Amino acid sequence: MSAAYRVGNGPSGLAARFEPRAAWRRAYDAVRSETARRAAPLTAEDQAVQSMLDASPIKWHRAHTTWFFERFLLLPHAAAYEHFDPRFGYLFNSYYVAAGPRHARPRRGLITRPSVAEVGDYRAHVDAGVHKLISDARPERREVWLTLEIGLNHEQQHQELMLTDILHAFAQNPTAPTYDAGWRAPEARDNAGGFLTLAQGIHTVGHDREGFAFDNERPAHRVLVGPVRIARGLVRNREWLEFIRDGGYRKPSLWLSDGWASVEAEQWTAPGYWQECDGRWLTMTLGGLKPIDPDAPVCHISYYEADAFARWAGKHLPTEFEWEVAARSGELSDADGVVWQWTRSAYAPYPGFQAEAGALGEYNGKFMVNQMVLRGGSMATPAGHSRVSYRNFFYPSARWQFTGARLADYDG
Amino acid sequence: MSAAYRVGNGPSGLAARFEPRAAWRRAYDAVRSETARRAAPLTAEDQAVQSMLDASPIKWHRAHTTWFFERFLLLPHAAAYEHFDPRFGYLFNSYYVAAGPRHARPRRGLITRPSVAEVGDYRAHVDAGVHKLISDARPERREVWLTLEIGLNHEQQHQELMLTDILHAFAQNPTAPTYDAGWRAPEARDNAGGFLTLAQGIHTVGHDREGFAFDNERPAHRVLVGPVRIARGLVRNREWLEFIRDGGYRKPSLWLSDGWASVEAEQWTAPGYWQECDGRWLTMTLGGLKPIDPDAPVCHISYYEADAFARWAGKHLPTEFEWEVAARSGELSDADGVVWQWTRSAYAPYPGFQAEAGALGEYNGKFMVNQMVLRGGSMATPAGHSRVSYRNFFYPSARWQFTGARLADYDG
Amino acid sequence: MSAAYRVGNGPSGLAARFEPRAAWRRAYDAVRSETARRAAPLTAEDQAVQSMLDASPIKWHRAHTTWFFERFLLLPHAAAYEHFDPRFGYLFNSYYVAAGPRHARPRRGLITRPSVAEVGDYRAHVDAGVHKLISDARPERREVWLTLEIGLNHEQQHQELMLTDILHAFAQNPTAPTYDAGWRAPEARDNAGGFLTLAQGIHTVGHDREGFAFDNERPAHRVLVGPVRIARGLVRNREWLEFIRDGGYRKPSLWLSDGWASVEAEQWTAPGYWQECDGRWLTMTLGGLKPIDPDAPVCHISYYEADAFARWAGKHLPTEFEWEVAARSGELSDADGVVWQWTRSAYAPYPGFQAEAGALGEYNGKFMVNQMVLRGGSMATPAGHSRVSYRNFFYPSARWQFTGARLADYDG
Amino acid sequence: MSAAYRVGNGPSGLAARFEPRAAWRRAYDAVRSETARRAAPLTAEDQAVQSMLDASPIKWHRAHTTWFFERFLLLPHAAAYEHFDPRFGYLFNSYYVAAGPRHARPRRGLITRPSVAEVGDYRAHVDAGVHKLISDARPERREVWLTLEIGLNHEQQHQELMLTDILHAFAQNPTAPTYDAGWRAPEARDNAGGFLTLAQGIHTVGHDREGFAFDNERPAHRVLVGPVRIARGLVRNREWLEFIRDGGYRKPSLWLSDGWASVEAEQWTAPGYWQECDGRWLTMTLGGLKPIDPDAPVCHISYYEADAFARWAGKHLPTEFEWEVAARSGELSDADGVVWQWTRSAYAPYPGFQAEAGALGEYNGKFMVNQMVLRGGSMATPAGHSRVSYRNFFYPSARWQFTGARLADYDG
Repeated sequence: MSAAYRVGNGPSGLAARFEPRAAWRRAYDAVRSETARRAAPLTAEDQAVQSMLDASPIKWHRAHTTWFFERFLLLPHAAAYEHFDPRFGYLFNSYYVAAGPRHARPRRGLITRPSVAEVGDYRAHVDAGVHKLISDARPERREVWLTLEIGLNHEQQHQELMLTDILHAFAQNPTAPTYDAGWRAPEARDNAGGFLTLAQGIHTVGHDREGFAFDNERPAHRVLVGPVRIARGLVRNREWLEFIRDGGYRKPSLWLSDGWASVEAEQWTAPGYWQECDGRWLTMTLGGLKPIDPDAPVCHISYYEADAFARWAGKHLPTEFEWEVAARSGELSDADGVVWQWTRSAYAPYPGFQAEAGALGEYNGKFMVNQMVLRGGSMATPAGHSRVSYRNFFYPSARWQFTGARLADYDG
Repeated sequence: MSAAYRVGNGPSGLAARFEPRAAWRRAYDAVRSETARRAAPLTAEDQAVQSMLDASPIKWHRAHTTWFFERFLLLPHAAAYEHFDPRFGYLFNSYYVAAGPRHARPRRGLITRPSVAEVGDYRAHVDAGVHKLISDARPERREVWLTLEIGLNHEQQHQELMLTDILHAFAQNPTAPTYDAGWRAPEARDNAGGFLTLAQGIHTVGHDREGFAFDNERPAHRVLVGPVRIARGLVRNREWLEFIRDGGYRKPSLWLSDGWASVEAEQWTAPGYWQECDGRWLTMTLGGLKPIDPDAPVCHISYYEADAFARWAGKHLPTEFEWEVAARSGELSDADGVVWQWTRSAYAPYPGFQAEAGALGEYNGKFMVNQMVLRGGSMATPAGHSRVSYRNFFYPSARWQFTGARLADYDG
Repeated sequence: MSAAYRVGNGPSGLAARFEPRAAWRRAYDAVRSETARRAAPLTAEDQAVQSMLDASPIKWHRAHTTWFFERFLLLPHAAAYEHFDPRFGYLFNSYYVAAGPRHARPRRGLITRPSVAEVGDYRAHVDAGVHKLISDARPERREVWLTLEIGLNHEQQHQELMLTDILHAFAQNPTAPTYDAGWRAPEARDNAGGFLTLAQGIHTVGHDREGFAFDNERPAHRVLVGPVRIARGLVRNREWLEFIRDGGYRKPSLWLSDGWASVEAEQWTAPGYWQECDGRWLTMTLGGLKPIDPDAPVCHISYYEADAFARWAGKHLPTEFEWEVAARSGELSDADGVVWQWTRSAYAPYPGFQAEAGALGEYNGKFMVNQMVLRGGSMATPAGHSRVSYRNFFYPSARWQFTGARLADYDG
Repeated sequence: MSAAYRVGNGPSGLAARFEPRAAWRRAYDAVRSETARRAAPLTAEDQAVQSMLDASPIKWHRAHTTWFFERFLLLPHAAAYEHFDPRFGYLFNSYYVAAGPRHARPRRGLITRPSVAEVGDYRAHVDAGVHKLISDARPERREVWLTLEIGLNHEQQHQELMLTDILHAFAQNPTAPTYDAGWRAPEARDNAGGFLTLAQGIHTVGHDREGFAFDNERPAHRVLVGPVRIARGLVRNREWLEFIRDGGYRKPSLWLSDGWASVEAEQWTAPGYWQECDGRWLTMTLGGLKPIDPDAPVCHISYYEADAFARWAGKHLPTEFEWEVAARSGELSDADGVVWQWTRSAYAPYPGFQAEAGALGEYNGKFMVNQMVLRGGSMATPAGHSRVSYRNFFYPSARWQFTGARLADYDG
């Protein structure tokens, strides 16, 4: 099998070696149908709303991820592909300046048409085009397979956003709708006590193996890490309730200055979606309004809150490299699958960072200022999407993601 | 037949005298089904969007008008009526402080649930309740029939807003959706030339007859009007194009100071929804994007624009009383049915004005500052809703209504 | 004496007949020195601050009124006049679009130079120019004398603003500086009880006599007024305290909708500059922080508050014409000299209104929307400036002027 | 001599060993008189203005630095010290929450009183108190001498801000006032060509010697740096003009996403204070409006601009540790004394960072998010204030400081 053909971590395993086209097709269909599965419980109205500037309508996510394949894969590489609707390029480009003008982000919720059903048609049309390309493209057309793979990883990122964005929308509704009646808060692992000690040493971080990674994980490089101790487990609601009871949200001395400004401006008194009701704390979840489970990891906290909590606890947040080295050791509980974990590292390029060529170079690099790195993965992250070198990033005030904290200690 | 029974201009004519219950039922069903008719071309997504703070979702209009009957008619007067969903009082109260707390107006577009279908169920449930009340209520329960009548007039006002609000929403969509493919711009009447002269004299304005009127039309009272000349016809697009070509939107000397601030802030260069495309003016309409018809009356202008145009033309806008006296003479063309006509009168209470008792007293009186009176009626006004004493009112910057102008001349 | 020479109410009396030039010079010097007198207690820093967008620095008032004479009187009419500094036209033009581009209003407080002393030099330079023009201009050059007169009236308006603006600035200072240690709250007249009844009738309002008036007071015209009863006296603090105690600032039912929005946004709980301190109400005045005098007329109220108070009291505010007819009867107490009195009349042109020609036409006409008329005059109004037909106007939310209320009653 | 007595780098040299009190007194007087020297060219109005939220009035700087000594040195440590005016604590506390409530930062420009002269009295009063404390305090009262030293370093920081803030204020004035007629643009050194190569290696960064340093420079710690090449010289206007001519401000692909948002919102087309005039670039300086000197280092650029320029040049900005290691080698030209140099390092705590105890702990630590580190020192930095481990920090959009750039290269 051609080396060019086996790019990234798209289709993997033995099957991929012997039937690469079938493996790509399976990988593509799996990702695409997961998007459909996540949208299925939602009405047309649910899919059209944009509940804040940071969020996008579900319908838009479904169309935008489709446009991504159309614009970057089919139009350049599938000669016979017929453009579904040229106006969609304007409507569903997110932020790729090199891909032309686009509908203003804050106005995505105004697009009542194309309808949910028409977006479904768009998805089917592009799926057919991609299927055909997978069947026809020559193995050595490396850019086809690379773009296909990045498109799948891109769509997985939007799958996570679909859940965070609909949760935000539902949380604005006084009737607290339920996305998934069977939803349960993730439990923290039992063995998550104590700290893992890292002596000072030089480690390699970043992605240097075969398999897919985003450009921001590269190049792998050496860093000096430690000494530091990293908590094996995540911060839990029980501890957070203690922080609240101890006046954590009322003591400016615990907060970064910009954080305290957010506390005052947004009148934060608890994590996002928490509300006090007759002396009991409830939280809005994908399963509707639920009582806080003290044993569950805290979720929907901003970086500012994570930092203030750490200060209150006499600890710190780890750097992203401390996190990565600890995670590579295999000794962290709930490193992924529960909540993304804020690190104290600002999102910045690795030494020697090279953005992807062309419009896809806008994917990561241009956001490398003012945001903080989160590591791990959450309950909303699609299976297989994240990895130990994965760098998620949000502004330090963001709370609508599934974000939590893991502490570090430098003091011995 | 009891006088108490024959309130207002709800059901009218001979039938009403002999079968008042049936007449009320017919009036009720006619208004309610007109709302359904206006919503029918719209998808669920169309009905959920709120495209600006001044507009509301169609679904909200449908539910709010229903809540009005439930809250002010059924709950107080229909003992056996079963509340459809108590949470709807919070969701669908507009601004009646006396009717309890309510969902913030700018957040109406976030309510994806109840769905369009559930709002339909709500409407049917309340319809059944009202039908039963019409059958059962005793003729002398004057408040029942008065509230029923105000509820019908209220719903008609929202019927007009449904069209203005969906037009605004569609105008935000780069694909320019069509509400009604058969829509045509209203033609101005042919005989609309010249001016009608009013000598100075004392006239009675306002509503003093039998039949329904809002509290803001009362009491009828005497005013000194004239001398003035009122244009028989409406300002047309042909003249407006001349105003544009003559730099009307670029000469601050033509504008009120606040108006010029709007021109600069909003970058107005033409009436609302107009766009220049390859040297040709188009406008967004209920029938989609259409070329400007020079003979049609100008529409979607703010008070500021109407005033600037009048100054440019060496004329003025009439006062609301000049308009009313002229309209009562029967010599105005297109007094209603085409566009609401801005007057130079600020919206203010008539001498001796008494707001309705209770929560319904918030209907009109509390808006009597900062807004300008419009008279007449538009192509979107339901048949039979307006009358010669009718006072519509909007902020002087508003352009999303079907608003136009009729000139006056004081100088000879 | 030439009729052309005796324009307006500038210099008046016998002297003016026989020595018109000397009379004009005296009038000019009197007005100009009053400006200096009002600025005298202020430091350079006091004169430079702009404490809100609606206010201007004292230094700016001093320079702007001077620029007015330079720009509209000297440059067009005094051939030999030497421009003091051409850059001042940009800095000190207020809003005269026809007089060229100008420094943005919100940035007036940034102009630390020219200094207070340089502005003094500017004033002296222009004074010399005007003195020379008064000596030299031929009596029949009617526009010279008219412009001189409007310039004096213009400067008097700014004299009032100097006091309202510095009071606002001092009120922002936690140390509550004193402008005039000898300042006393004006006392209401003792005989100010009861109501004056006006039967319905046609009256002439507006300015139709010899003597100066602004264009907005013209033309005099006939209006139908009454029946109405007008309070002889002003609303006093004693009554306002009762309104506060009765929850006046907490009951939305008393307020216009836009007014209630201001109450909530600005968190109004009392008139402007009032503060509660250990259970006692104090107010910031030109004499510093003082206890509220219950017998003094209420001051620093917005139109919204005046309207809400009137509703609470079961009364209304009078229209501007009711006020004028009552004031012409001579039976109102404190018609002027204490506080401007909000009327329920929106500021609008009189029928047949003609703005002044040229740039001075921007003086009044372009503000005729969104503002409410106040009548009378205040403790800060220069002697001889106001008159019975005088129309002052401010936005309904304004509180930094010396504004109060007089009630009316339509109900018998 | 007691070790306790010889803290920090306040007074230094032989004299300090033998006459420590005299040395402290000389150091104190030197710093305090430098503040007076910097304020001397300014009028009272110049000293009162606050030209934007980020800037403070000169008078405020003079009072705030004085309050710092009063609040943290005299009140706790000088028993007989008489409080000058207790209200000043409210007016002149900047952001020390632990030191009590304070006047809101955006309102500093409203404080016309105390006057410039009264602030002078305040300074003299506190100077007398500090002089007495220097004479009386026992050598072993370590906290006295530490606080004195931090107060002097604090005042030096404000000395730099006095120049940046008055330059900003003067730049708002269309008459472009001059602060110092003798001001000249700093020249870049001649030998500043080429790059210095750093091989990969572990270096110690941060402050670990005797002598004063802020808490944010500690603890010194080991970092892995390189391989990297650092430019010996600063970016110059000549290169920046080329960047402009090449469309640097018009190509979104060169910019971070947040940076491009600033370009669009602020309409940046050149560095701060630059203006194009008849095809020639001028810039506002402390010496008034001057032509751009192509050989001078570029100044008044934001981090966003520095980053975009580096990308355009095919280079990067160095990290703060790369900068520090290179600067310690002595091979950088203009490392300080010209412009602060943006690094690509977000401002964050060093591992093991401990904020100062008490209110002074708010000095640095609470700002460690959302800001970028600048290294070096500028033409406005007081002599002796900066050092190789010094960490300055500003938001990435800030342009009113004397900020420039030095490039790095990872690729060669």
